[in-house]
Amino acid sequence: MSARSGGRDARQKLRSERSVTYMPSLERGLPYMDLLSPDELQRLHNFSMEILEDIGIEFRDDEAIEVWRAAGASVTGQRVRIDRNHLMQLVAKAPEYITIHARNPAKTVTIGGRKTIFTPAYGSPNVLDLEGNRRNSTIADFVNFAKLAYQAPAMHMTGGVLCEPMDIAVPKRHLHMNYSLMKYSDKPFMGAVTSRERAEDTVRMAKIVFGDEFVHNNTVMVSIANCNSPLVWDATMLDAVKVYSASNQAILFTPFVLAGASTPASTLGSVAQLNAEALAGVAFSQLIRPGAPAIYGQWLATVSMKSGAPMAGTPEIDHMNMLVGQLARHYKLPWRCSGSCTSSKLVDAQAGYEAARNMYGVLIAGANFVLSSTGYLEGALTQSYSKFMLDAEQMVMFYKLGQGLVKSELDETMDAIRQSEPGGHYLGTAHTLKNFEQAFYVPELMDHDSFEQWSFAGARDANTRGLAAAVRSLKEYQAPPLDEAIDEQLLEFVKRREIDIGEAVL
Amino acid sequence: MSARSGGRDARQKLRSERSVTYMPSLERGLPYMDLLSPDELQRLHNFSMEILEDIGIEFRDDEAIEVWRAAGASVTGQRVRIDRNHLMQLVAKAPEYITIHARNPAKTVTIGGRKTIFTPAYGSPNVLDLEGNRRNSTIADFVNFAKLAYQAPAMHMTGGVLCEPMDIAVPKRHLHMNYSLMKYSDKPFMGAVTSRERAEDTVRMAKIVFGDEFVHNNTVMVSIANCNSPLVWDATMLDAVKVYSASNQAILFTPFVLAGASTPASTLGSVAQLNAEALAGVAFSQLIRPGAPAIYGQWLATVSMKSGAPMAGTPEIDHMNMLVGQLARHYKLPWRCSGSCTSSKLVDAQAGYEAARNMYGVLIAGANFVLSSTGYLEGALTQSYSKFMLDAEQMVMFYKLGQGLVKSELDETMDAIRQSEPGGHYLGTAHTLKNFEQAFYVPELMDHDSFEQWSFAGARDANTRGLAAAVRSLKEYQAPPLDEAIDEQLLEFVKRREIDIGEAVL
Repeated sequence: MSARSGGRDARQKLRSERSVTYMPSLERGLPYMDLLSPDELQRLHNFSMEILEDIGIEFRDDEAIEVWRAAGASVTGQRVRIDRNHLMQLVAKAPEYITIHARNPAKTVTIGGRKTIFTPAYGSPNVLDLEGNRRNSTIADFVNFAKLAYQAPAMHMTGGVLCEPMDIAVPKRHLHMNYSLMKYSDKPFMGAVTSRERAEDTVRMAKIVFGDEFVHNNTVMVSIANCNSPLVWDATMLDAVKVYSASNQAILFTPFVLAGASTPASTLGSVAQLNAEALAGVAFSQLIRPGAPAIYGQWLATVSMKSGAPMAGTPEIDHMNMLVGQLARHYKLPWRCSGSCTSSKLVDAQAGYEAARNMYGVLIAGANFVLSSTGYLEGALTQSYSKFMLDAEQMVMFYKLGQGLVKSELDETMDAIRQSEPGGHYLGTAHTLKNFEQAFYVPELMDHDSFEQWSFAGARDANTRGLAAAVRSLKEYQAPPLDEAIDEQLLEFVKRREIDIGEAVL
Repeated sequence: MSARSGGRDARQKLRSERSVTYMPSLERGLPYMDLLSPDELQRLHNFSMEILEDIGIEFRDDEAIEVWRAAGASVTGQRVRIDRNHLMQLVAKAPEYITIHARNPAKTVTIGGRKTIFTPAYGSPNVLDLEGNRRNSTIADFVNFAKLAYQAPAMHMTGGVLCEPMDIAVPKRHLHMNYSLMKYSDKPFMGAVTSRERAEDTVRMAKIVFGDEFVHNNTVMVSIANCNSPLVWDATMLDAVKVYSASNQAILFTPFVLAGASTPASTLGSVAQLNAEALAGVAFSQLIRPGAPAIYGQWLATVSMKSGAPMAGTPEIDHMNMLVGQLARHYKLPWRCSGSCTSSKLVDAQAGYEAARNMYGVLIAGANFVLSSTGYLEGALTQSYSKFMLDAEQMVMFYKLGQGLVKSELDETMDAIRQSEPGGHYLGTAHTLKNFEQAFYVPELMDHDSFEQWSFAGARDANTRGLAAAVRSLKEYQAPPLDEAIDEQLLEFVKRREIDIGEAVL
């Protein structure tokens, strides 16, 4: 009760807070890049339907099997075969747009259609730390990345498992991650999915912040459910889905595509399969609660046939993202993919090439929810402070790229051209003075100085500048206000649950 | 005479040579990304026409002025005002497609429409050398880059000023560059543009290789003519245009856009101006020789309003490229822009981010002639051996991205899926074994190993791997056969001209 009003008061109080550089959900101003004709799209869809009708998909969870049986699907053991009409009826219940509420209402975001949001990398057990050393990540790192995500202008969520706090035992880890996400940032966050109990804890903590009823009727977080491709949804993930979907919280249904290993060695074939997997997940959520927010997703890597290693930034990933985008728009579902991915172990040229290529493809493909926008190294095994900062700046530029043109400016600029002379210049003209701050974005972590200036200033590479920027951002961090009563209740909840969990373990 | 038949023989002899990994002109399989509606495009076009009709453009060359006057344009001093109907009639004479012949016919390329080629960076006075040191470039470096370009699979021309051979005096430099381009690679090359005499030398050397008549009737090289934006074509460039266009050799008409300085602080305004400049250049070439191959071009940087420095990889450059692409397609002209550009002084993450972003934008925009695909650092002031190799591999991936989907594969892969089981995998299946080599490209200079494997192997960053690859490629280099008589004539020409030029200087 007090929690609920506290949440509302806090939200109102924060409505007027500064958000100077904050960039709201991106509204896409670029056309789409559809690779398939309507007939070809239908054919790809039909193959996915054939997979679900003929091969079927396994739901390795008794409750889920009962849900499917009750809904009239054909069930044999754990294998569920779903008629295409039934499937598409369920998929049609999922909303086209999802509004994800932040504890600061100014940072509430919407995804779907032309609207896109960016979120940090997820799940690394390691960090490349502020001294540039690779080591296991800790809760202190987690808090730091929450602060950096809070400060990043084109970052729309604080994230989820920003890095694994390896210094906290697994059964209690989610409590501290949740608390940090809610405390150190006022952007929307992601929920724990490693067990039903942890998902329930997360919903309860969200209710402390937002109030019970608000959480029941609105979406305040997004959680990942990975599909064990090929064609398996396992009990752990389904347990989390059941909790979150029943509570109206959004799920990213994410087939885990290691193309060539968990899907066929084929771009179109991989997409036919992941489409079946993702749609089956989305449909399941609609059996749990019709209208529950569901995000069509995938994690994509192509597999090196030399070593079996996953790769990012390859052309086939771009093609797959474009195909998935076209399918998701066809189904009117918001969709997710991963942004600044790389296999590099360092913040070197490989990291730059792969992150930029992968992210550019994602933007062009029109993803609505971009996970792993920042910090990602080593196929997600390491979160880098330096790369977080460099990527965050790139995301500002991707945001501006995605916005498209400001077409209204043409008349005014033509006046400026009319006043110009051949052989002159535009530096210092009235038009330039008026427009220069907005006309061309100047990334601060990219160095545009001459070789001589750059040498004189210390000849620092991008990695070094990224590290310095992370230190600076953490120093400048000021916590967003959080109602003291809410903070106390959250801490109390964490403490109580730690005791419960500790006793359960004994 | 003997030269001509020698050229023909040589071409026939080479027709059967190996080109194992060579990738011919890219045939685009992606849709375009047009930012403007037809009405908006017309409006932008109209503004460019207004610039040429009302403000006019300066041709700072008496001969050019006479050409315009004779053609009926309004001329006041060096200012030429061109009626839009007249202009568009001239532009319509320029060919939609250009075939650029190589001395090895298997490497002859075509640009225009959906066809795209990649070429190396141009004009750097410095190299980051094989030991990673920055120093003035030499003719030895030039020869090395010609060899690397020859070996790069997705590189369609050997290039032009691969780097400035600073150890050769300027008046003789073009002779040695031309010879190296013709000798060490069998791909098409670019011509000298720094004076009329040097352009004439280049045409004469090309005639030694291809024969007089062949060169007169076909296109065997491409040369750059930069416009001194805003709105000035200078005598040096126009002299080169006159020589090359009269000889049916292609010109890249390239407004030099430092957006915010040489064009307005506006994306659309910059394009309105560069469009006027490029079209005026193309139109001029059609007065020299109707049907002469002309490439609509631009070099783009946005200017940092903090320091005045040019920037690459920024979102406004992508928008400009998309606009230019749409305009060039409207005019049915092949168009050029620059690929893997960066301001970085090192082969670091900045170089990777900027090169990949800039090149991705260029590909999406549909450029037909991509200059600076490889090696570019420091706003073109340095050519890097390491970055050449890393970029060259990226270009293979951009090529594959640009090709789009292989749609025929879907049926076969569906058979593979039908034989699969939930929870299984595709490694080692018949379909995978058959397709893995083609299905997913594995970049060799990007490291996909685990942290442990990578550490054990020496923990090398991308720059170090790029350098090693350059050393390897130069070691593996085998010269493409060149008719001995042609080689002798070329050397003789260079020697004779060196004496002439030396005497002229005295």
